[in-house]
Amino acid sequence: MLVDVSRTPLSPTPRTVVNRHSERAATDRAALDDVLDSGLICHLGVLFDGAPVVLPTGYGRDGDTLYLHGSTGTRSMTAGPVCVTVTIVDGIVYARSVMHHSMNYRSAVVHGTTRRVDDPEEKLRGLQAVTEHLAPGSWDHARLPNKKELAATVVLALDLTEASVKIRAKGPVDEDFDIEANTAWAGVLPLSSQWGVPESDSPLPVPEHVLKR
Amino acid sequence: MLVDVSRTPLSPTPRTVVNRHSERAATDRAALDDVLDSGLICHLGVLFDGAPVVLPTGYGRDGDTLYLHGSTGTRSMTAGPVCVTVTIVDGIVYARSVMHHSMNYRSAVVHGTTRRVDDPEEKLRGLQAVTEHLAPGSWDHARLPNKKELAATVVLALDLTEASVKIRAKGPVDEDFDIEANTAWAGVLPLSSQWGVPESDSPLPVPEHVLKR
Repeated sequence: MLVDVSRTPLSPTPRTVVNRHSERAATDRAALDDVLDSGLICHLGVLFDGAPVVLPTGYGRDGDTLYLHGSTGTRSMTAGPVCVTVTIVDGIVYARSVMHHSMNYRSAVVHGTTRRVDDPEEKLRGLQAVTEHLAPGSWDHARLPNKKELAATVVLALDLTEASVKIRAKGPVDEDFDIEANTAWAGVLPLSSQWGVPESDSPLPVPEHVLKR
Repeated sequence: MLVDVSRTPLSPTPRTVVNRHSERAATDRAALDDVLDSGLICHLGVLFDGAPVVLPTGYGRDGDTLYLHGSTGTRSMTAGPVCVTVTIVDGIVYARSVMHHSMNYRSAVVHGTTRRVDDPEEKLRGLQAVTEHLAPGSWDHARLPNKKELAATVVLALDLTEASVKIRAKGPVDEDFDIEANTAWAGVLPLSSQWGVPESDSPLPVPEHVLKR
């Protein structure tokens, strides 16, 4: 049986129920994939000695699994309870009052317990997902990992079963009396990311997958 | 006595000592301020029922204090142990091997315990810092918080005493044998953020502080 995971609703566990601004919550799986695939890095939350630590980290998605990788010497690369958050800021919302200022954004928060990937085939698949997320086309272009590199690398897998997505994509929401007073401007200043001109460190021509990004 | 905090070294506690890629660690206070002032949002790590939760959040810096704000109904706005991380991605580093792919970035990781700000004057100063970080110029332009809004808002303060900064800003670091083989391109694809054209939600002209951002 084919299961279209992109239409599976997100799990409504207590910690994925959006309490604040619940109108911003997206509840289908396609929204989660969209945010994860649109982001560039995630912020990985782990516990060190009982305190939260948040580290910027690369990631990649393969179907229903999120992969992270790091050196064997990296403390955050130990399997355990994590929270992985991906956020894209799309604009600043200027309101007529300072307290109604806001942001347009898309964010995904994934909860779960990571699993260390030891199966060589899945490990390579995880590394491919992370590489292709960071640099699409590089897996086919650059040299693949050798035995020594694989041994020095930890790949962690996180199931995308417990997650929440929040999206805000609209203008300011102001008080009626502020709109009536009409003393302050309001609107949205859009923000986007932009690739620059590739800086070569090689005598070879810049390949298509970099030029066309 | 005047203390130039911008020249104070960052605290070397065990959790702020950079173990991986220690050559990327910046150790002076000016580097921390630079990253915090250049970022737009932070990722706030807190503990919910013993598990890490990471949420995208606005912030502002006033001297040696980082301020966060949120609704009184927001669970993450409870004073307690936190980790606040700000990351700016400056480019993708394409290497000759997939495992040497990397990112150019600036990141700040601040550890500590937040304090709920109850003093009305500091609370307003905290809100100003957060507003001016998100939307410089808005504190003077838009309506300031009224009593009801202030009562519905929590401001948390975090001392910038325990933090680490990592900066990578260079080309790929490849294996000699990959450079010699010369079979894959290597270089940096820069990434930057760009403001778009303001989308007005008001009959007033777009003010200078928005136009010139």
